[in-house]
Amino acid sequence: MSLYLRQVEREIAEGNPTINSRRLGQLLGLSDSQVRRDLGWFGQFGYRGIGYRCQELVDRIREILGTGRPWPVALVGCGHLGQALLGYAGFSRQGFAVRAAFDRDPQLIGQHIRGIRISDFSEFPEIVGREGIELAILAVPADQAETTAAQIAGSGVTGILNFAPTLLNLPGPVTVSNVDLTIELEQLAFAVVQHRGKR
Amino acid sequence: MSLYLRQVEREIAEGNPTINSRRLGQLLGLSDSQVRRDLGWFGQFGYRGIGYRCQELVDRIREILGTGRPWPVALVGCGHLGQALLGYAGFSRQGFAVRAAFDRDPQLIGQHIRGIRISDFSEFPEIVGREGIELAILAVPADQAETTAAQIAGSGVTGILNFAPTLLNLPGPVTVSNVDLTIELEQLAFAVVQHRGKR
Repeated sequence: MSLYLRQVEREIAEGNPTINSRRLGQLLGLSDSQVRRDLGWFGQFGYRGIGYRCQELVDRIREILGTGRPWPVALVGCGHLGQALLGYAGFSRQGFAVRAAFDRDPQLIGQHIRGIRISDFSEFPEIVGREGIELAILAVPADQAETTAAQIAGSGVTGILNFAPTLLNLPGPVTVSNVDLTIELEQLAFAVVQHRGKR
Repeated sequence: MSLYLRQVEREIAEGNPTINSRRLGQLLGLSDSQVRRDLGWFGQFGYRGIGYRCQELVDRIREILGTGRPWPVALVGCGHLGQALLGYAGFSRQGFAVRAAFDRDPQLIGQHIRGIRISDFSEFPEIVGREGIELAILAVPADQAETTAAQIAGSGVTGILNFAPTLLNLPGPVTVSNVDLTIELEQLAFAVVQHRGKR
């Protein structure tokens, strides 16, 4: 659904008010019946002879994804990766607002990065409660990920996006997504090999 | 295939020499017929009554993905994101070796990060040729991504992994993968919403 969302947003940026399943499929490398099936799964929102109204489709997909409203986010770990994520333009564009940042390093605590003050991780539960934060981005070293995630989960946050190159398995009601950046490199290598095979 | 690879590697790490399609499916949230179909696509390498031999499966998937041999990689852009990627443990674990790093900032050029010297981007074609580099990781600001990518493509690199939050469309034989970190946050938000609905 994220891929559909990106593509339809691009259509709007290019000034196209509508798109049909055939064109959407071509752009995404899918058959038009696949597109109709995917989007039809969430209700009937195509128009005969018109296709989809782009803005309506974007609103509906955002609603489905849960990103129709802003999500307040906390960043935990303000090393290189954390600081890069603080400045990542895509997050705020899609409704994710980093409201607080945390570290344990006294050298970092109190510094401001892109307008966000880095707080001591010991203040995490208090600040998360006050700011109504629901999601946390975890960007700490691998050996600290498990214990830090457990502390985050204990303070009412419902989702953790884990960038540490270690797989987290937390019990309880918190949802964890593990980001594996190597998969992106693998897919690129695979695409390069396929591409060579065709020449 | 990357997800299969990770899961089977985990089985090996836990000391399991074999795995069957049912268990692999359970771990990945797929039906066993889906697993057999996915893996069967690339040839017959299951054994009746045993399932798959984990090491054989890993070797075969790596061969398919093109990661059965090391890929020399260059990093372009050594800001926070670039430096975080230089230290990303997952890359070398899966056979990607960052052999050279580049920036345009005189303050960064000549510095060493995790044993890699940051070179001037003007030396890119020469160093890439010498080191036999095939893939480049692009971690420059969005407004420099397009021109930098065109220069990279002009020097014989066959694949670019683009972390800049802008979509690259390069002509010619170079393969580009655009990484969109926001998709990961969207999927987490979606999972959290689904999880709440179930309670």
